[in-house]
Amino acid sequence: MNKHALIVAGGKGLRMGAEIPKQFLELKGLPVLMHTIRAFRFDPTLAITLVLPADQFTYWKWLCEKHGFNEPHQLVAGGDSRFQSVKNGLMAIAEADALVAIHDGVRPLIDKEIIENSYKVATEKGNALVVVKLKDSIRKQDLLGNSKGVNRENYYLVQTPQTFEVKQILKAYEIAEDDNFTDDASVLEASGEKINLIEGNYKNLKITTPEDLIIANALLQ
Amino acid sequence: MNKHALIVAGGKGLRMGAEIPKQFLELKGLPVLMHTIRAFRFDPTLAITLVLPADQFTYWKWLCEKHGFNEPHQLVAGGDSRFQSVKNGLMAIAEADALVAIHDGVRPLIDKEIIENSYKVATEKGNALVVVKLKDSIRKQDLLGNSKGVNRENYYLVQTPQTFEVKQILKAYEIAEDDNFTDDASVLEASGEKINLIEGNYKNLKITTPEDLIIANALLQ
Repeated sequence: MNKHALIVAGGKGLRMGAEIPKQFLELKGLPVLMHTIRAFRFDPTLAITLVLPADQFTYWKWLCEKHGFNEPHQLVAGGDSRFQSVKNGLMAIAEADALVAIHDGVRPLIDKEIIENSYKVATEKGNALVVVKLKDSIRKQDLLGNSKGVNRENYYLVQTPQTFEVKQILKAYEIAEDDNFTDDASVLEASGEKINLIEGNYKNLKITTPEDLIIANALLQ
Repeated sequence: MNKHALIVAGGKGLRMGAEIPKQFLELKGLPVLMHTIRAFRFDPTLAITLVLPADQFTYWKWLCEKHGFNEPHQLVAGGDSRFQSVKNGLMAIAEADALVAIHDGVRPLIDKEIIENSYKVATEKGNALVVVKLKDSIRKQDLLGNSKGVNRENYYLVQTPQTFEVKQILKAYEIAEDDNFTDDASVLEASGEKINLIEGNYKNLKITTPEDLIIANALLQ
């Protein structure tokens, strides 16, 4: 099956404290988002769709020109939420009989091997979700503010890519939006499908705080 | 109340792939453990107890000599598990009517403000547990291998220090060891006490993988 990558960069930069949205912050002189797109270009047959807030299109095109960045990609306008942005991106992928890896635009350090494995497992089982084990203990807090230690062995941190058959995830996204959908796997799950976990690594961090940028810079070396 | 810090470094370095235990790996030319001890020395009245495997005492003393490291601390032999090591350390603290901050030897980037706040809250409420919110979505896996997305808003990642009244945590540690005790707060919790969560930061990472060492180096700059 043909392979698509749907890279979602909805960040308006609110959490970062910086002026510019997180996806445009620079790592080794290049915007985060360009690193992310390049991470998928190990396979030249892979079709890339980039979802960005419409009001960032001009800035993005200017950045591409400035950096001589000419990796082919389709540009799609994001929605008011991650859910809507992903849905817009999926609808722009014309091919239903294909695989799509949905990936956070602010996870530039994703390894080729993990991407390849996610397509492989999705080919065999319909979907693949990249996760890592928890390194720290966790606690669950109830509505009264009381917390309780829980066994971390049973929990996984969810990353991206989350890879699906286009037609299946597109159908799942017909559901009404819900705050419980924190990722694409939870949307597919709501349609009754079983989610297949595959192992990622800790390097694949999501850049959401100023520390993360320092960390990503160090890990890129 | 007088303040103690119990720094626990039981690492035999198995997970790291390196020859030397994690607590002795170097950050900016100084073993991780020395950074950790120094993080508590902002208050010169604070009494520091260091728990190390007995077969690492000689190496530690050699390291202290090599680096001219002369921060006063009491050295206590660790046990076969973290539980036993903490228990040994607590029993070596002669003063029952005091506070003790139990801290991982491999968390060298702990901030002074967080340590101070943990003593403050423990003074007022009996204990304080440093936690951070989850940045990634999480999934819970059941015994059959099926996983399900859970609401990350209800979960916290547990760090250290975990700060207690010495007499109270010492009493809690009289309980039989149990695999469910992943940290000191869960031991105290088993004795029926309510745990008080306080906010930490993401910088306070636990050095457990080679990437963590790269990250810690970058964050130290």
